[in-house]
Amino acid sequence: MLEHGGRLLRAAERYGIAPEKWLDLSTGISPFGWPVPQIPASVWQRLPEDDDGLAEAACSYYNARQLLPVAGSQAAIQALPLLRRRSRVGVIAPGYSEHAHAWRRAGHAVETSSAAMLLAEVARFDVIVLIHPNNPGGDRFARADLLACHASLAARGGWLIVDEAFMDATPEHSLIAETQREGLIVLRSVGKFFGLAGARAGFVGADADLLETLREQLGPWSLSGPTRFVLKQALSDHAWHSSARDCLHAASARLASVLSRHGLMPSAGCAFFQCWQDVRAEAVHVALAKQGILTRYFETPASLRFGLPADESAWQRLDQALAALNLRSCPP
Amino acid sequence: MLEHGGRLLRAAERYGIAPEKWLDLSTGISPFGWPVPQIPASVWQRLPEDDDGLAEAACSYYNARQLLPVAGSQAAIQALPLLRRRSRVGVIAPGYSEHAHAWRRAGHAVETSSAAMLLAEVARFDVIVLIHPNNPGGDRFARADLLACHASLAARGGWLIVDEAFMDATPEHSLIAETQREGLIVLRSVGKFFGLAGARAGFVGADADLLETLREQLGPWSLSGPTRFVLKQALSDHAWHSSARDCLHAASARLASVLSRHGLMPSAGCAFFQCWQDVRAEAVHVALAKQGILTRYFETPASLRFGLPADESAWQRLDQALAALNLRSCPP
Repeated sequence: MLEHGGRLLRAAERYGIAPEKWLDLSTGISPFGWPVPQIPASVWQRLPEDDDGLAEAACSYYNARQLLPVAGSQAAIQALPLLRRRSRVGVIAPGYSEHAHAWRRAGHAVETSSAAMLLAEVARFDVIVLIHPNNPGGDRFARADLLACHASLAARGGWLIVDEAFMDATPEHSLIAETQREGLIVLRSVGKFFGLAGARAGFVGADADLLETLREQLGPWSLSGPTRFVLKQALSDHAWHSSARDCLHAASARLASVLSRHGLMPSAGCAFFQCWQDVRAEAVHVALAKQGILTRYFETPASLRFGLPADESAWQRLDQALAALNLRSCPP
Repeated sequence: MLEHGGRLLRAAERYGIAPEKWLDLSTGISPFGWPVPQIPASVWQRLPEDDDGLAEAACSYYNARQLLPVAGSQAAIQALPLLRRRSRVGVIAPGYSEHAHAWRRAGHAVETSSAAMLLAEVARFDVIVLIHPNNPGGDRFARADLLACHASLAARGGWLIVDEAFMDATPEHSLIAETQREGLIVLRSVGKFFGLAGARAGFVGADADLLETLREQLGPWSLSGPTRFVLKQALSDHAWHSSARDCLHAASARLASVLSRHGLMPSAGCAFFQCWQDVRAEAVHVALAKQGILTRYFETPASLRFGLPADESAWQRLDQALAALNLRSCPP
């Protein structure tokens, strides 16, 4: 298994600090989660049904013609490589590592590379996987470049897969409205924006034939009943969407400012996190962990990802911990 | 996609009766579900973690040395065929149709047959899939016969898979305590006994190496956080387990008696349902549906499966509807 963020219990054990005492900034999950109401007992008891209105609510929220609900982007990441014969696959790197892992495991020839190289050498690939905005690298792409990349791949029966797990705060940059085009596949996740990472849910936008093949591959009841119940409401709560976007943009800007003030100038970021690329990243990760603040450390390139603090006490705690590091006066 | 029970919304549309007006006896899900408490917000927000104590609670409840939590037996049913090279697979029939479907889709040579034939001709197969007790056929198996079947298969690198989705009311017949034996795979589901079909959760018992391979195949976060939270408590609620077993056995016996009194002598059953095999099964299915009572109709052999009514008003409604059919005076 690959290593992921959100391993709070493991960190609690390693550093001898009880789980409830941590400030967990190790994920890119919004701390301004959609407020989940109580779940009716019948939703737990009955088998989920496909015709419960969830797909319609999702098409409206994402502005897509057709979507397939899946058990998190992860389910689609694992299933898509099984739907193609052996292909030459280019995957953005550094980025969410499950993409390359899944294509390799399914026997494809995988090359990981910068997005710039992938977009410049489209002809060498049958499938290109991008993450937009990228995690943790923060890369952004011009719509015209993505559509040109897709057109080149699709003309040869190829795919462009765009993982938009962190796109909800900037929906104007999404390609999901274009996914009726054959060979353009967009992955969305409800974990980050709605703060529902525990729900394990996402959506795939693609042409209708591919969605049907994927549906058959994933089998029935890929989402739990409680998750369907919650999502249908969360996706329809337009007033909340708007205010959550405002909160995310404001908190992300504040985080960039706090980090900069303490000598950790962000190298990349989006509405959900800020990244600091620096040779001292691992040492700072450990120093913060010893103060009960969990960040996500990436080895290559050495960098730390900071998620958004949830409230004023969290902001103050981060501010004080960064001040104690005294990085401004200790250059690398 | 195959057809399943629990399609209440579709029946509501077909018969023009609002969903909330139905008496739904179309599933084998216990109507005496475990009472789900409110879910803390953090459980929805955070990524699920493997080391939350769920596996330990499950090993204690099932009396197994090692188990893998999966997103319903369905997830295991779909994944297991991917872990073997092309095999000769014997699957119990009639039975839950997803087993044969999954093995065929993965390219194996599948033969569906009665359990008696499969157990008599073990040497012709690499893998045998049984359902115990069988759904809807109700077949039961002697422990010694199952272990002999497993020994024969395992000696040749084969597998015996026993789907025990309906075993919780009779745990003394389970083989899950024996699953450290290589090639013996037992599937359990929480949907039926705990009345948590919406949770999409189950467990696989098998030797440690196979469980690790299956875990890698299924990927991270196969269960949602709320499902893990609920299951850990439900699996540990021993007093409830005992009283739920009593309720199921009593209700199943009462159902057999009600059906018999109205001329529908059950041909098979278990603690969760009763089956009536009869050439008039489809006509009775339709006649009951027109009265807002949903049963599950099976074509081959023609039979109806009745789940358990939940309360006295449900019992009375079934009793009156069966009386109106007047089957005692209309033999086939």
